Formats: sequence, C-alpha cells, structure tokens
Amino acid sequence: MLPETQNISIPANGRETRLSKEAILNQHARVIWMCGLSGAGKSTLATRLDNELLSRGYLSQVIDGDVVRGGLNKGLGFSSEDRHENLRRVAEVAKLFVNCGVISIVSFISPTLHSRAMAKNIIGEQDFLEVYINASLDVCEARDIKGLYKQAREGKIPDFTGIHQPFEAPEHPDAEIATGSMTVEESIRQLLDFVLPRISFKDQHEQSQYKPS
Amino acid sequence: MLPETQNISIPANGRETRLSKEAILNQHARVIWMCGLSGAGKSTLATRLDNELLSRGYLSQVIDGDVVRGGLNKGLGFSSEDRHENLRRVAEVAKLFVNCGVISIVSFISPTLHSRAMAKNIIGEQDFLEVYINASLDVCEARDIKGLYKQAREGKIPDFTGIHQPFEAPEHPDAEIATGSMTVEESIRQLLDFVLPRISFKDQHEQSQYKPS
Repeated sequence: MLPETQNISIPANGRETRLSKEAILNQHARVIWMCGLSGAGKSTLATRLDNELLSRGYLSQVIDGDVVRGGLNKGLGFSSEDRHENLRRVAEVAKLFVNCGVISIVSFISPTLHSRAMAKNIIGEQDFLEVYINASLDVCEARDIKGLYKQAREGKIPDFTGIHQPFEAPEHPDAEIATGSMTVEESIRQLLDFVLPRISFKDQHEQSQYKPS
Repeated sequence: MLPETQNISIPANGRETRLSKEAILNQHARVIWMCGLSGAGKSTLATRLDNELLSRGYLSQVIDGDVVRGGLNKGLGFSSEDRHENLRRVAEVAKLFVNCGVISIVSFISPTLHSRAMAKNIIGEQDFLEVYINASLDVCEARDIKGLYKQAREGKIPDFTGIHQPFEAPEHPDAEIATGSMTVEESIRQLLDFVLPRISFKDQHEQSQYKPS
C-alpha cells in the first residue's frame, strides 16, 4: 500500500523540473505572443516560425486563437466576456507549455492593452514576449483573405476588431514586424532574428541587433 | 507586403509536424490517462512518472485535474456539467501536447465510463492509454490524505466520488496499478514497465510483459 507519508501531492512543474526540461531540449522556453489585426499575417508567421524553429532543432507549439476556438474554447463567442475567457485559457495553456520547456507561439488578435496585460500577468513577465504583427487596417481589409472584413462591413459579423472595435497597438512591444510592407520571407527572417537569441542557450550573450521600429 | 497567396492558413500541428517533433524528442507521444478514486495515488504517481521519464531523457507534462482547477479551469465547480467541461478541456490540452510530441500524463478522477470515452474520442484511440490507479474506497477513505472523505461524509462536500457518486471502474484498461496493495516504488516500477515500451522508439518491438490483472 502507498505509505501515507509518500502520498503527498508534489507540485508538478516546479522551477527545477522546468529547468531540467529546458536542458534536455537545449532551449529557453518563452511565449511569443503575436498580436495584430485579422489578416495581418499572424497565423502564417506562427506556422512558419514553428517550422523554422523545428528545422533548427527547437521545440515549439502554435496556439492559434482561431484554431482553439474549435477545440479547447469551443462554445465561446465574441462577446467581451467570451473574448476575455478565450484569452485567459490561451494564456494558461501557453504557460503549461513553457513550464514544460516548450516555446509557445501564440497567434491571437488580442486587441486591447488590458487583455495582453492579463496574458502577461498569467504567463509571467520574464517569459512573455509581445510581438506586434503590424499591418494597417487598410492593408488587412484590402487583402481580406477570409472575407471577414467584407462580412463585418455588411453587418454580418458583429464586434469585429478594426471595424466595430479598436485595435489598441502595443505601446512597447518586444518586437514589431511590419507585415504591411514586407514579404513573408522578410517578416520571418526578422522574427527569427528576434526569437533565436532569446531561446538559444549559446546565443544568450549575443542578443539580436534587431530593435522594434 | 505579404502576398495573398502565401497568406493562407496552414494547419498547424499536422501529422508531419508531429512526427518531426517526435523524432527530435526521440519518443512516441501518448496520453497516459490515469483515473481512479481520490487518494488512490494518481497525483503522486503522475509526478513520479514525469520525473522518471525526464531522468531517462523523455519529455512529458503532467496535467492534474486538481491543479488545472486553479488555472485553466478556474471557475468550474463539481456539478455534472462542470465536471464534463473540466474533463473536456483537459482532454483538449492533452491532445495539444501530444500533437507537439510530448507525453501527457493526466491525473484525473474521471469517474464515469462516459467521461473517459469522451476523452478518448477527443484525443484519438491510438494515443489514449487508460491506466486505472486502483485502490478500494476503504483504502482511500482510511488514508484520507486531504481530509476530503471526512468532509464528504459530514456532508460538507457534495457529489464526492465514491461517497455520493459511483466510480465506474474501467472495463478494459490498458493498464491497472493496484496501489491499494503496493508501495509507491512497486507502483512506479509497474507503471514504467507499461509506459516505456509504448513511448520508446527502440523498444517498440519488445512490448512489455506487463498485463493488467
């Protein structure tokens, strides 16, 4: 029988466990929180970043705001309350991955300063890297890959960020990728320049030259 | 500017990406779903398993039903509906980890056949390993590490599994650990005998001799 003294709940994912996991993965776990308007290129860059990191031997996980709405966050809508809850869960899951040593790549409109502050608070300041995927509303609406802006203008989608609700640009993002004026290749290169020194054990002392514009 | 043709949402975590991640981790990702009564030793074994795997170079993540109630599942209670939603989210998160190549160790009472069937359905049959952490109600209540059985008997905790609601034992678990009659060391050894051949690349052909009793 399990002796009672040993049957005490040990906190899983303590600091030490995380460091051991980062050590076997040979990487620092961080959350790359990519915010920006619908159509700015967040999902594209998230998936590309995941693949680019994988090809360099880093382990990351994409948590896409749209994708998790079909799974973890099924049943949540786009009201202010539901958006808040959607974001809260995404932040909690990103934190679980980071505690496991895995780099979390979050792709999430997360339109308000307040919502991103909450995410940062859940995840922890040291692990939270805010990346502003910046394309103007005009550019995003002209692209309108998913036809969402058209529907929003026609009143078929309520509470659409950029149309009915403001996108509050980050005041001091850790990085800013100007996807309105760069190709995917240029964007991913700039993103990698930002991310790699922050996750690599060996590059720690040679921080990227990249600064948000 | 991101050309429109490249800005198509690529499914993150496709089968190929998962296999590449498993390859760099040198492991098969699976969900070890540990069910059983409160006090049977699930959390203890989950944490020990996580550490034992880590010491062998495997990457796993504990998802503890009790722990996530303070984070991801904050606000959910113990009504039938809330338990269902709690379990659903845990299964979705376990699936995210498996898609990232990471072994998920779930510690969760998950008392009904129906609830575990739902978890299996979300996660996928091939990735779902049901492990019954089996100690009798008498044993668990005699231990009562957290004092929960006492409170449940006094009517201070409603809907307590084993007291007010039945625990439906798995009919055909993939493994069964009889923690009512074994030490922690014996239990973890048996658990490892079950788990290691199923996650290891090299041991794939030499499946464990262990059979559930």
